[in-house]
Amino acid sequence: MPALERLHERMAELTDLGALEMLASWDQLVMMPPEGGPGRAHQLGALARITHERATAQEIGGWLLELEGVELGERDRDMVRLARRDWERASRVPPELAADLSRAHAEGQESWALARANDDFASFAPALQRNVELAQAYAECLADGDDGRYQALLDDYDFGLRTEELSRLFAELSDALPPLVAEAQVHSPRRELEVPVDAQRTAVAGILRRIGVDGASWRVDVSAHPFTSWMGRRDTRLTTRYGDGDVESLLSSLHEYGHALYERQIDPALERTNLGRGTSMSVHESQSKLWENHVARSPAFAEVLAAELVAAGFPVSAAELHATLVGVERSLIRVSADPLTYPLHIILRFQLERAMIEGELAVPDLPAAWRDGMRLLLDLEVPSDAEGCLQDIHWGAGSFGYFPSYALGCLIAAQLWEAMEAEIGPRDEDLRRGEVGPIQRWLADRVHRHGRRLDTIPLLERATGGGLEVDPFLRYVAPLAGRS
Amino acid sequence: MPALERLHERMAELTDLGALEMLASWDQLVMMPPEGGPGRAHQLGALARITHERATAQEIGGWLLELEGVELGERDRDMVRLARRDWERASRVPPELAADLSRAHAEGQESWALARANDDFASFAPALQRNVELAQAYAECLADGDDGRYQALLDDYDFGLRTEELSRLFAELSDALPPLVAEAQVHSPRRELEVPVDAQRTAVAGILRRIGVDGASWRVDVSAHPFTSWMGRRDTRLTTRYGDGDVESLLSSLHEYGHALYERQIDPALERTNLGRGTSMSVHESQSKLWENHVARSPAFAEVLAAELVAAGFPVSAAELHATLVGVERSLIRVSADPLTYPLHIILRFQLERAMIEGELAVPDLPAAWRDGMRLLLDLEVPSDAEGCLQDIHWGAGSFGYFPSYALGCLIAAQLWEAMEAEIGPRDEDLRRGEVGPIQRWLADRVHRHGRRLDTIPLLERATGGGLEVDPFLRYVAPLAGRS
Repeated sequence: MPALERLHERMAELTDLGALEMLASWDQLVMMPPEGGPGRAHQLGALARITHERATAQEIGGWLLELEGVELGERDRDMVRLARRDWERASRVPPELAADLSRAHAEGQESWALARANDDFASFAPALQRNVELAQAYAECLADGDDGRYQALLDDYDFGLRTEELSRLFAELSDALPPLVAEAQVHSPRRELEVPVDAQRTAVAGILRRIGVDGASWRVDVSAHPFTSWMGRRDTRLTTRYGDGDVESLLSSLHEYGHALYERQIDPALERTNLGRGTSMSVHESQSKLWENHVARSPAFAEVLAAELVAAGFPVSAAELHATLVGVERSLIRVSADPLTYPLHIILRFQLERAMIEGELAVPDLPAAWRDGMRLLLDLEVPSDAEGCLQDIHWGAGSFGYFPSYALGCLIAAQLWEAMEAEIGPRDEDLRRGEVGPIQRWLADRVHRHGRRLDTIPLLERATGGGLEVDPFLRYVAPLAGRS
Repeated sequence: MPALERLHERMAELTDLGALEMLASWDQLVMMPPEGGPGRAHQLGALARITHERATAQEIGGWLLELEGVELGERDRDMVRLARRDWERASRVPPELAADLSRAHAEGQESWALARANDDFASFAPALQRNVELAQAYAECLADGDDGRYQALLDDYDFGLRTEELSRLFAELSDALPPLVAEAQVHSPRRELEVPVDAQRTAVAGILRRIGVDGASWRVDVSAHPFTSWMGRRDTRLTTRYGDGDVESLLSSLHEYGHALYERQIDPALERTNLGRGTSMSVHESQSKLWENHVARSPAFAEVLAAELVAAGFPVSAAELHATLVGVERSLIRVSADPLTYPLHIILRFQLERAMIEGELAVPDLPAAWRDGMRLLLDLEVPSDAEGCLQDIHWGAGSFGYFPSYALGCLIAAQLWEAMEAEIGPRDEDLRRGEVGPIQRWLADRVHRHGRRLDTIPLLERATGGGLEVDPFLRYVAPLAGRS
C-alpha cells in the first residue's frame, strides 16, 4: 500500500515540523537573547512556508484518491479521514491569500502592541480592518452552504461545533451568571495574599513534583505569559510566572499542567500521525480548566497547596488560601478574571467578533460596542480602550473564532468532572492527600488517549453521555454565591 | 533577474534551516529533558532530509544555467560561484547513499559510545568498517582525476587544501615537535591548580563580559562538551564546563569565544546568503585557537585572568596561573593535551584515517597502528583502546578529513597572530589591561568580514602575505621549551 505509506511518512514529517515550530517559539519566549528576534522571525517564517507547502501538496490529493474505497484498519481509517479533511480545507485557500494572512497577522500584532501601549484604538483600526477582511475572504473559501462565515472560522479551532449552539449556550450563561456574580461578590469577595516569589517558586516546584512533573521528560521555566509546549510525548515544557505578592503561579502552573497531561497521555500508537494531538481548542482548554478550577481551586487541594507554602516558609491556612483562589470581583481584564465572571468576558468577545466577521459591526464602532457589552454583562464602565477592546492580542493576530474555546473549556471541564465523580466517586479525600492518580487515569481513558480520533462533541458524548451543557458549570460556581 | 532572485531566496531559506538545526542541536545538548532524545532524532532527521532536498533540487541547476555568462556584481558573483560549487558537489551524491551515510553515522556513534565505555574495539569494528566503506563510496562520487579519495573528503571541510601539502606540513611538525616536547617537560612542566567551580564560574563570566559577551545577543550555558552555536548574527550561544579543581573553563570559554566572534563579525551584507558563514574548518579553528593559545595562554592576559579569579575569591598570581595554562606533558588524550603536544595527536589521526580511506590500513589493524603511532610521535605506551583509538567520536560519526583542521587551526592562528603584531604592534600591553578591541577589529577586517568569499588559502595569503607555514607556530611554542 504505497499511498498509505507515503501518507504516514508525510504525517510524521508534519509532526516533526510542528515540534520544531514549538521548539523555536518556546526558545524565543524562554531562552533566546532579545536581539535574536529578527533572525527567529525568518526561521519561523521558513518553517511555516515549508510546512504549508508540504501539508497542501498536490501529491497528498493523489494518495487520498488512491485510498478511496480501500479497506483499512480502524486507526488508518481515522488517519485518512482526518488527512482528507485537513488537506481539503487547506487546499481551498489560495497560496496568495495564505501569504497575505500571515503577513497581515504579523503586522497586526505589532500595530496592536503599539496601540495598546498608547491606548490608541484609531492607530490599530486599519490593521484590524485588514484582518477582518482577510478573515472574511478566508472564511468564504471554506464556507459550506448557508453556514455563515463565522462557522468556517470556528471549524479551524473546534471542528463540528455549531455557531448557533454556542449562541444558545452563551445566552443561557449570560442570563444565569450576572445574578450569581452579585451574590458572590458578597459571599466570596476578592482578597489579597502577599506570597513572596521565593515561596511561590518552591511551592510550585513541590506541587508539580507531587503530580508527576520530573526532570526526565519535563521542563518548568518562567516566561512573561504562561504557556505549554510539547515536542514529542516525552519532552513537555511548561512555563509559569511569579508576580510579587499574588498566587497566580499556583493556578497557572496547574492550568498549564492540564494542557501538558493531555498531550502526554495520548495513545502512543498515534505518535507522529495526524491523530496524535489534542482534538480541539475547547477540549484542550477543558483540560487546563479542569486542573485550574476543579483541582487547584477545590477546598480539598487547598490543603496540599497551603502545606507546600507553609513548607516554603509562608504560613497560611488552607481556608485562607482557598478563599483567595476563588474570590470573585467584576473586573475589566479577562486574563485575571475569577472563575465565575470569566465566561462573561468571553461571551462579549464572541458576540463582537461574530458581528465583525458577519459584517454586522464596523471596526470603528468596536470600542463603543465593547463599552455597551461590558455595561450589560458585567455592569462595568470601561475607562480606556487599553483596558477594553485592546486588551487581548487575538484580533491583532487575526485569530477570530478562538475565544469561545476559553468559555467552552470551563463548561466541558465541569461536565467531565461531574461525570468522573459520578463514576469513581468524589475526589475530595484523594485531593486532600494530593493523590491525583485516579483523575489522571480517568482522563487518559475517557479523553486523552483518543487524540484527534474523536471530535469535540463525540468525545464529550462518550465521556459524559451527553452534549454540551451549562448546568454542571453553574453547579460548580453556585457555592461561590453561597448557593449549593 | 528572476533566477538570481530565486537563488537568493533559496540560500536564505537554507540559512534559516541551518539555524533551526543549530537550535535543535543546542537545545538537545543544553536544555532538553533526557527522554526527549528519540523525538529530537526524528525532528533533526526531518530537517536534514528537507535541507538536503532543497539544497540539491534540480531547479537550482536551472537557475545556475540561466545565470551562466550573466554580468553580476562582485558579491553576487561569489554567491553564484559558491552555489554552483556546493550544488554540483551535493548533486553528485545519490540520495540513497546520502541516506545510508546518515543512518550509518547515527548507528556508528551509538556503537562507538558503547565500545568506548566497555573498552571493546571489536564491537565497534563492524560499524567503523561500514563508515569507512561508505566514506570511500562518497569520496568516489566526488573525486576528481588522480586526487585520491581522502582529498575529496578533505574538500568538504577545507576546500582547496591539498592532502600532499598537509603531509608536508605535518612531516615538518613531527620532526620539529618531539625534541621541543622533551625540553618543555622540564622547562614548563604540567602543574595542578585547584580552582573551585564557583570561582571559575564567576571569573569566566567576568572575562567574557570584558570582551563583549552581553545578555542582549549572547547566551553562556554549561554542557558536557563545550561548543558554540549561532542562529543569526545576534544570537550567539557558547557553552563551557566547569571541572572541579582545574582551569579548563578559562581556556575553553576563550576558545569558544573565538568561534563565536568569527561568525558575528562577518559582513552583515552577507547575512542569509551562502557566503554568510565561516569559510572552512581550519580557519574556524584558527579563530578559536587564536583566543585560546595567543590570548588566554599569554603571560600578559594571565594578569587579567588572575585578577578575575582573585576577585572571585581564589588567590593566585598571574605567573602561577600562566604556568598552569601552558604546562606541557606527553599524554594519551587529545582533548586535554597541552598546546605543544596537541598537533602530534592530530598528525597520528590524519595518518591513520588517510590510510583507512585509501585502503592502506584495514580496520582490524587500527588499534595496533594507533599504538605504534603513539610510541613514535609521543613516546607513550597506550594501555587501552578506550584511551587510544576509541577516544574520539569522529570516526564513529563518519567524519573523515575533519581532524587536520585542529592542527591547521594552531598553525594558522600563529600565522595570523604574527601578521597582526607585525602590523599593529605587540599586544602585550593591551592584553595586560584586558583590551582586545584592536585584535577584534584586525580579525574582522582581515578574516571575519569575508565570510565564505575567500577560501582558506586565498584568505591566508591576503591576511599574512603567504601560504600555510609551520614556523610561526614553532616560534609560538619555543618559549615553552626554554628557547626563544
